[in-house]
Amino acid sequence: MTEKVKGHLYLIPVPINQHDNTSILLTKDKNIVEYLNYFIVENEKTARFYLSALNLCKPIQALDFKVLDSSTTHDAISNYLNPTLEGFNIGLLSESGCPAIADPGAKLVALAHQKNIKVIPMIGPSSVLLALIASGLNGQQFKFHGYLPTDKNERIKKIKSMENDSKKNHGTQIFIETPYRNQHVFNDLIVNLQDQTQCCIAVDITSSEERIQTKKISDWKKAGKLDLKNRLCVFLIKA
Amino acid sequence: MTEKVKGHLYLIPVPINQHDNTSILLTKDKNIVEYLNYFIVENEKTARFYLSALNLCKPIQALDFKVLDSSTTHDAISNYLNPTLEGFNIGLLSESGCPAIADPGAKLVALAHQKNIKVIPMIGPSSVLLALIASGLNGQQFKFHGYLPTDKNERIKKIKSMENDSKKNHGTQIFIETPYRNQHVFNDLIVNLQDQTQCCIAVDITSSEERIQTKKISDWKKAGKLDLKNRLCVFLIKA
Repeated sequence: MTEKVKGHLYLIPVPINQHDNTSILLTKDKNIVEYLNYFIVENEKTARFYLSALNLCKPIQALDFKVLDSSTTHDAISNYLNPTLEGFNIGLLSESGCPAIADPGAKLVALAHQKNIKVIPMIGPSSVLLALIASGLNGQQFKFHGYLPTDKNERIKKIKSMENDSKKNHGTQIFIETPYRNQHVFNDLIVNLQDQTQCCIAVDITSSEERIQTKKISDWKKAGKLDLKNRLCVFLIKA
Repeated sequence: MTEKVKGHLYLIPVPINQHDNTSILLTKDKNIVEYLNYFIVENEKTARFYLSALNLCKPIQALDFKVLDSSTTHDAISNYLNPTLEGFNIGLLSESGCPAIADPGAKLVALAHQKNIKVIPMIGPSSVLLALIASGLNGQQFKFHGYLPTDKNERIKKIKSMENDSKKNHGTQIFIETPYRNQHVFNDLIVNLQDQTQCCIAVDITSSEERIQTKKISDWKKAGKLDLKNRLCVFLIKA
């Protein structure tokens, strides 16, 4: 008896900005998405919005959606990949950019490897990667820290430890923050980092408001107020 | 007197495999490349090969190429951005994937920031990012180390220190190697990492030979020989 050919897990990028429904898929990848019936998504509403805008050849109502967000447990996803056993391919979508980076999608990808299901990533936007390459900071060694601690004292401790790490190992330190806290983080950077430390602020990447600037802390101090509140922002520092 | 509007520096991705001339640009980005006359490239031959395949509306001979590779000094690039002062946009291309990550392009991007030239990254393939998302390993914290030391003892020391770091901080550790040394690195990982450590081997990403697999070291030992020689490879570990 031959084993049935298993379906694959496709990692499908979406635009970084959730209100943007421009396709950022290459044509060859869009052609693959056309044939998918099963989707695992961080947010069903934004996923439906995005897939509708692709003008797929079948109605959105005919598609099967399962949700994987930060509250989804390991147990809950244990049967999410079952359609692959019947030979169906599945698409994984996050709420913003590429899935499985700075979002809960990695859990499902790990499960796919355990079940010997082939994982195929599609090319798409990652704000972390785009910010790094556009920063001009060290792209040979870098570290992504995710979100900073919410407690101000802990946050300042973390900022200083990243600067020390960069001074010692010469790597770029990258982190993100929830949009409503960006302004506080920026102020903490200006006050707590050394004047010679390079700092890149990458705002609203891939949108028409995109603005990516790298300056020494001493120059950021001179540059005056920067309005970051409620804007998507990636921070990078290099001592 | 009003200041002339400066040109921008576009970061243009190319396919990961140098012998692949499929366009990996989004249509909107290809339309921008159409209008560029100035290019700064890691390798002139591969850049010309790639741009020719885009079927630009002007002859390749009419374009201006400057080389920025690992032997190019800071002094040599000091005038590379001059066309932007006349309002011309410039494109930066590396030999593989996105520029300014694991290649010498970051020098030029840093110079652009110093000169207040707007830097605009285009969406494209990065083997490091694609390997990370497809690995199922921690995408909330990760560290990219570039190339490992060439000396075997130093390499083993580095491998063990990455495993310790991951055990302590739970982050994914990512590194690359020159293709002819991949097999040695793989053997060093199998022998020196602990059985429970997760290891992802991502081979020939974006090509038809792409193969991305994550297993515990104990399972890699059982999986038997893996032929990595002369294949493009990204390694990821998570303790």
